[in-house]
Amino acid sequence: MKLNEWLNNEIPNIAKTLVDVHKDYFSIEKSIGFEGQETIYKILQNFRSALFPCLCDKYSSDNTRINVSIGNNLRKSALDLSELIGKVLVNENALNETDAKRKAEEIVMNLINKFPEIRKTLQTDIQAAYDGDPATTSTEEILFSYPSIQAISIHRIAHELYKLNVPIIPRIMSEYAHGLTGIDIHPGASIGEYFFIDHGTGVVIGETCTIGKNVKIYQGVTLGAKSFPLDENGNPIKGIKRHPNIEDNVVIYAGATILGGDTTIGQNSVIGGNIWLTQSVPENSKVYNSQPLPNIK
Amino acid sequence: MKLNEWLNNEIPNIAKTLVDVHKDYFSIEKSIGFEGQETIYKILQNFRSALFPCLCDKYSSDNTRINVSIGNNLRKSALDLSELIGKVLVNENALNETDAKRKAEEIVMNLINKFPEIRKTLQTDIQAAYDGDPATTSTEEILFSYPSIQAISIHRIAHELYKLNVPIIPRIMSEYAHGLTGIDIHPGASIGEYFFIDHGTGVVIGETCTIGKNVKIYQGVTLGAKSFPLDENGNPIKGIKRHPNIEDNVVIYAGATILGGDTTIGQNSVIGGNIWLTQSVPENSKVYNSQPLPNIK
Amino acid sequence: MKLNEWLNNEIPNIAKTLVDVHKDYFSIEKSIGFEGQETIYKILQNFRSALFPCLCDKYSSDNTRINVSIGNNLRKSALDLSELIGKVLVNENALNETDAKRKAEEIVMNLINKFPEIRKTLQTDIQAAYDGDPATTSTEEILFSYPSIQAISIHRIAHELYKLNVPIIPRIMSEYAHGLTGIDIHPGASIGEYFFIDHGTGVVIGETCTIGKNVKIYQGVTLGAKSFPLDENGNPIKGIKRHPNIEDNVVIYAGATILGGDTTIGQNSVIGGNIWLTQSVPENSKVYNSQPLPNIK
Amino acid sequence: MKLNEWLNNEIPNIAKTLVDVHKDYFSIEKSIGFEGQETIYKILQNFRSALFPCLCDKYSSDNTRINVSIGNNLRKSALDLSELIGKVLVNENALNETDAKRKAEEIVMNLINKFPEIRKTLQTDIQAAYDGDPATTSTEEILFSYPSIQAISIHRIAHELYKLNVPIIPRIMSEYAHGLTGIDIHPGASIGEYFFIDHGTGVVIGETCTIGKNVKIYQGVTLGAKSFPLDENGNPIKGIKRHPNIEDNVVIYAGATILGGDTTIGQNSVIGGNIWLTQSVPENSKVYNSQPLPNIK
Amino acid sequence: MKLNEWLNNEIPNIAKTLVDVHKDYFSIEKSIGFEGQETIYKILQNFRSALFPCLCDKYSSDNTRINVSIGNNLRKSALDLSELIGKVLVNENALNETDAKRKAEEIVMNLINKFPEIRKTLQTDIQAAYDGDPATTSTEEILFSYPSIQAISIHRIAHELYKLNVPIIPRIMSEYAHGLTGIDIHPGASIGEYFFIDHGTGVVIGETCTIGKNVKIYQGVTLGAKSFPLDENGNPIKGIKRHPNIEDNVVIYAGATILGGDTTIGQNSVIGGNIWLTQSVPENSKVYNSQPLPNIK
Amino acid sequence: MKLNEWLNNEIPNIAKTLVDVHKDYFSIEKSIGFEGQETIYKILQNFRSALFPCLCDKYSSDNTRINVSIGNNLRKSALDLSELIGKVLVNENALNETDAKRKAEEIVMNLINKFPEIRKTLQTDIQAAYDGDPATTSTEEILFSYPSIQAISIHRIAHELYKLNVPIIPRIMSEYAHGLTGIDIHPGASIGEYFFIDHGTGVVIGETCTIGKNVKIYQGVTLGAKSFPLDENGNPIKGIKRHPNIEDNVVIYAGATILGGDTTIGQNSVIGGNIWLTQSVPENSKVYNSQPLPNIK
Repeated sequence: MKLNEWLNNEIPNIAKTLVDVHKDYFSIEKSIGFEGQETIYKILQNFRSALFPCLCDKYSSDNTRINVSIGNNLRKSALDLSELIGKVLVNENALNETDAKRKAEEIVMNLINKFPEIRKTLQTDIQAAYDGDPATTSTEEILFSYPSIQAISIHRIAHELYKLNVPIIPRIMSEYAHGLTGIDIHPGASIGEYFFIDHGTGVVIGETCTIGKNVKIYQGVTLGAKSFPLDENGNPIKGIKRHPNIEDNVVIYAGATILGGDTTIGQNSVIGGNIWLTQSVPENSKVYNSQPLPNIK
Repeated sequence: MKLNEWLNNEIPNIAKTLVDVHKDYFSIEKSIGFEGQETIYKILQNFRSALFPCLCDKYSSDNTRINVSIGNNLRKSALDLSELIGKVLVNENALNETDAKRKAEEIVMNLINKFPEIRKTLQTDIQAAYDGDPATTSTEEILFSYPSIQAISIHRIAHELYKLNVPIIPRIMSEYAHGLTGIDIHPGASIGEYFFIDHGTGVVIGETCTIGKNVKIYQGVTLGAKSFPLDENGNPIKGIKRHPNIEDNVVIYAGATILGGDTTIGQNSVIGGNIWLTQSVPENSKVYNSQPLPNIK
Repeated sequence: MKLNEWLNNEIPNIAKTLVDVHKDYFSIEKSIGFEGQETIYKILQNFRSALFPCLCDKYSSDNTRINVSIGNNLRKSALDLSELIGKVLVNENALNETDAKRKAEEIVMNLINKFPEIRKTLQTDIQAAYDGDPATTSTEEILFSYPSIQAISIHRIAHELYKLNVPIIPRIMSEYAHGLTGIDIHPGASIGEYFFIDHGTGVVIGETCTIGKNVKIYQGVTLGAKSFPLDENGNPIKGIKRHPNIEDNVVIYAGATILGGDTTIGQNSVIGGNIWLTQSVPENSKVYNSQPLPNIK
Repeated sequence: MKLNEWLNNEIPNIAKTLVDVHKDYFSIEKSIGFEGQETIYKILQNFRSALFPCLCDKYSSDNTRINVSIGNNLRKSALDLSELIGKVLVNENALNETDAKRKAEEIVMNLINKFPEIRKTLQTDIQAAYDGDPATTSTEEILFSYPSIQAISIHRIAHELYKLNVPIIPRIMSEYAHGLTGIDIHPGASIGEYFFIDHGTGVVIGETCTIGKNVKIYQGVTLGAKSFPLDENGNPIKGIKRHPNIEDNVVIYAGATILGGDTTIGQNSVIGGNIWLTQSVPENSKVYNSQPLPNIK
Repeated sequence: MKLNEWLNNEIPNIAKTLVDVHKDYFSIEKSIGFEGQETIYKILQNFRSALFPCLCDKYSSDNTRINVSIGNNLRKSALDLSELIGKVLVNENALNETDAKRKAEEIVMNLINKFPEIRKTLQTDIQAAYDGDPATTSTEEILFSYPSIQAISIHRIAHELYKLNVPIIPRIMSEYAHGLTGIDIHPGASIGEYFFIDHGTGVVIGETCTIGKNVKIYQGVTLGAKSFPLDENGNPIKGIKRHPNIEDNVVIYAGATILGGDTTIGQNSVIGGNIWLTQSVPENSKVYNSQPLPNIK
Repeated sequence: MKLNEWLNNEIPNIAKTLVDVHKDYFSIEKSIGFEGQETIYKILQNFRSALFPCLCDKYSSDNTRINVSIGNNLRKSALDLSELIGKVLVNENALNETDAKRKAEEIVMNLINKFPEIRKTLQTDIQAAYDGDPATTSTEEILFSYPSIQAISIHRIAHELYKLNVPIIPRIMSEYAHGLTGIDIHPGASIGEYFFIDHGTGVVIGETCTIGKNVKIYQGVTLGAKSFPLDENGNPIKGIKRHPNIEDNVVIYAGATILGGDTTIGQNSVIGGNIWLTQSVPENSKVYNSQPLPNIK
């Protein structure tokens, strides 16, 4: 067939087939859609500049102007987020529109009311980065060039929404951070203050992890699940504790893998690079590979 | 020298030197250029919204409007892609312009005609993600927040172009996916339905891999080449089978490395995390590290 | 509280709290800010199109036009970069404005004067990619789809600024490359010509690394520090040699970890995948895991 | 009051007052809004490029591409216009949504079906400009730099919608043309082929005008109403014939004013500059001011 | 000279000459600049959407959202306008920065505090348009397609700033309206409620005009100055009453010219089209041209 | 027909008809197109900021930066304009591509070499506005809010191109000014220094006008042609002198119309408002309407 004819005659059929297939599996009306997804990214950028005012799109050193700029951002984002949450509460949780709207508004007020507290925790994360990396020379550098801060800022927001039982949106947030930084923290993970991930690419932190204070993690570390139980239909059973607990003051070096919901790393422990660990270790442990030296010819 | 003079007097010389050096190695006329690269990214976004209409830039629940929007996107992208393919066929394959244009048009029609089939396969990939991750709560969540779906959607398109012998463009597509997701699948790899990559950062799947149905892969897995033979000039010999075969129903855990064109993982096998494997294993194998437990002090 | 009231009454207080907390730890006036960060990204894009004129935003095959376009880009970027460097020299190095301006201008002229030399080195990197990957079919493909080239282009620029003692900005540049490619090269690292990183996701190259000529590295390789000494206050001592030396013609396979400032990999050595190495190896070494074969059931 | 307090405390009250006042007079839900207004402008630009394909945003000399581009534009604009018309039919004409949608779709199909005919008429207008202005050198120049063509193109579209009883939208279109060109043609005016307005600024053509073929008008000409009758409440009676008839082959020079619904300018007449005319003149008239020569001292 | 050389060698000289000439007559540092000009346009658009909330960029029917949107717009615009006014007060009125800032803030608060009152007056202008034009069918149509409303909205804002002795900015506002509508109202003119200009192109209303309530003006009307007195140096004496007074309930038809600061049009008068009037007329006058009928051959 | 079917089945036919009709009258390949038109507007904005550096998009008070910014703008615009002129010289003047390119480059160098001289003349125009309008308070105000300056700036550029026999482009420039200001000056008109147009809407200045020094014109003034002679085919004879000569120090008040190529207004004359003049007047004339006073009842 000639291109011209094909464009006029076949494309409408292909488009129709694609739309029809999509409708067999998804509701187009109910989806938050591409625009919703982009709005969430925009909200996160606004929240980031509220938490760190020197990251405002256009800031000046005039106090009134900074306050207005952040206030405006927060108001706008509060409404946008409230609308999106309302939508997913209707679609995923089957609330009616009035209840969903009311609940969405409560959730958003709840979240933003916690921003001063979140901000304080993020300052401890910045301090942990400063203390933990000899290569850095200032906290300003950390704010502008450490993926860890970007990932943990987004996580601490997404985690609040996760705790408030908001569907989908926290995961879109965490995946946004993952795309930017290579650090994949499920919004369900509970993470204490003074948290630092160095370099970060390939880090995976699972949904039911709990991480204490002052924990430091290097690139390529997985805090994951062991194989998970299936229900009678062969589907994974959702909602059970599957990921490890990391207690205070633990350091986990690059490429280490720690698996399982009943695996606990006791406080003050150090886990060496490339370690594969599926069992608990007590406080103050130092875990290194006992493998023979590499074969050098 | 003062900045002002340098800007006026030296910059033109530096610019000229840079252009001249570039021309020693590259043709500027023949390059697809920055604009071509950006166009490919835009085409992929249009294709994505055609495959998943809820990801349209602006969609509504009106059926006619969705169909028109996707039809328009496909028409526009078909022409843009056809133009780019025509260009690379002239430059890389030395076709004359008329032949290149005709062949490019056939290739594009071929590709888009397969979209309904590709879409069906992608639905199996979504199902595999749903079945394979206890953390997910809906297929909507998968569509909006799983890098695996983004990577495999682009791969299934790029792979068709690869099979149709289109130079360069499939690789630009796969690298685009790599940049977004950390998942690096060469467009040459052949991948069966119900494919799922969890987390995904650091996954590498080589050009001559074949992967069966219902395969699940975790972050950091490499399906790569062993050292490759050189020709008499010391250059790598291109185009030979270098990467492994993964049969149906195989699971490969995080950080495993499987190398070599004559390495086959038999169906229903499970490859443990961090495994380094350069030989075939039979069906139903379970491969775990036999290394001693880590040294815990 | 009703949303409406909360937006009017509480948001100003939350904004004020966030601004006040920020000011306790950061200076808003002195920060390069979001705009500065975005300007650095834009400068890097301009530099990239100067180094590779076929990547110009809008290029044509007309020689005068290409030269003008690149000259204009360089002039504009030179001024933007000079302004930003001036700012950080005042804030971080406590220079007065006049000295900072003069020094910033010198630094920028120094940097851009080296572009022809940098370009020549980048051509060796492209050649190394062509020689080192059997999957590639042309250098054009390498330019448009190899993350290695993007990462090393940015690194060679950032490294010049690092050597000229510019604070913060080189790190923002390297983190920009890290976000795009998953390759994290500290601007302090010294890297010889004919350098190639295949796939690249998860590669970490530390600040005080030195890498010789014709070195090839695969995804997931870490060239890092061993645990670092603390000063009497428990803070890491900054500025000491912490990362390994890689001599000429070394190949390091995927996932290998090489640590320590006194670790040297002798020339012509090959380091196998997933190797964990904290000691030097002599020239011509081949280092493979001596671990037993995996346990296959 | 200090600015800061005022921004936080008074602005919400002022905003509320403004919204409340607006609601006393207008419905916010029912308004086509700023976005609707902008959409109409965008539709007109798309229609213009459909009528004159060399005015496409990005056109090429490839036939298929031009056709696709215009087809896509028309499809998109047809849906956008249909949606807006549906909205105003509900709001202004009190149709129910189903009827309004059906009627809007008919109207749009009607309009666009007439485009080939409208295009032919516009070609006569271009010819009239070419014949009527010694300063022009090509029809290409007319297309790109004559406000007359822009105004009459939009008028011929708006007039079709006016005849199809679409409220508001035709007037938004005509005012858009007025803003661009200074030529104010009410969409109700009926205008024959070969129509040309030279310079055009200040031309006003009223709602119930009829203008024959081959009429030429200069800047500042008004074809207006005499004082209009009021109803018993003192409101102007709407919908009666108020503006003049201009027959074929008439020329009206700059600044002339012709008023009244029963004023007819007979064919082949010439009306001189600055003439004030409130009565009919027969065919072949030449109307000049009989005023004495100006007083020259 | 060859183009290439000329671009490198001559352009810097031409640029330098142009900058030097500019500096002979203007201060670059003190100018509000292109950005300031664009900011004023943006502020006017924000003010317009505050005065008419259905013209918000993105509005919805949700009350909270509209209020937040307008509140945010007003806050942002208040700060932007305050900054610009501060700048012109320093440059034109030679205030010091602190006084200028304080005064600018007062002026902006003053202006925006009057918005509810301005809005009420604008509603009378809309009503006057509705009453005065038989062609209109709804007030919605007037809001979206009458240049008069756009011009008078901007005038009522600019006039407040003029009364508060703000230099330059009110004129930039009025010229913005002039460019959009062809209606040129000097911000100094005082205009009563229920004001309507039909069609409007070419209307000029001078700085010291006073216009009463319920006045209606047609296109091309000039309310201007007679020749003005010069001072001893031959410069026009600024700041004296030069333009006419129009009392309540006057109608002035198209093209009429009324000149002079001591010319008063008494209330309830009607001035005919194209009238040239340089003297006062009493109440209830009807002024028509006594010129002979045009010469019709 | 249902909308859906019509969109798929009829739109391609309508698009094809419109393209075919267009091709009967215009060449799509040869047109400068929408993009060319937009480029001309962009060039004019760049030229404006070169002539008045305080109108740069982003200017600073740093001398080097302003010079670079203007130099870059001029270089870019020189190439863009040269390309467009080359195109029209091929299409309209039938030059071959090489000759057209060479000639276009000469024309552009010629034009921009005159910018310092044009700038000096524009300063006299600014002075004339300052001297001629008692309402203005500063030359800064004139630059930012007088349409006269915008129109005459563009005219002085377009006129140079007209004198260099560039087709079409000067008229696109003059119509751009016309759309912005309501002032329509044909690029052929020759205008002396110290030129000022007050208010300006509706002013028309014809192609073969010559205007001396220190001339002041008010809104609505036409300097036009009398009826023009036709050739044997009934087409207007192009290229003959059709518009009046205005000598030095003439003032022409609002709405005056002066017609004819052999009409000369002697120096130091004053032409009153609304005058209709088709004959020459000697030096020092004062021309006022001798019409009786209006009829006042």
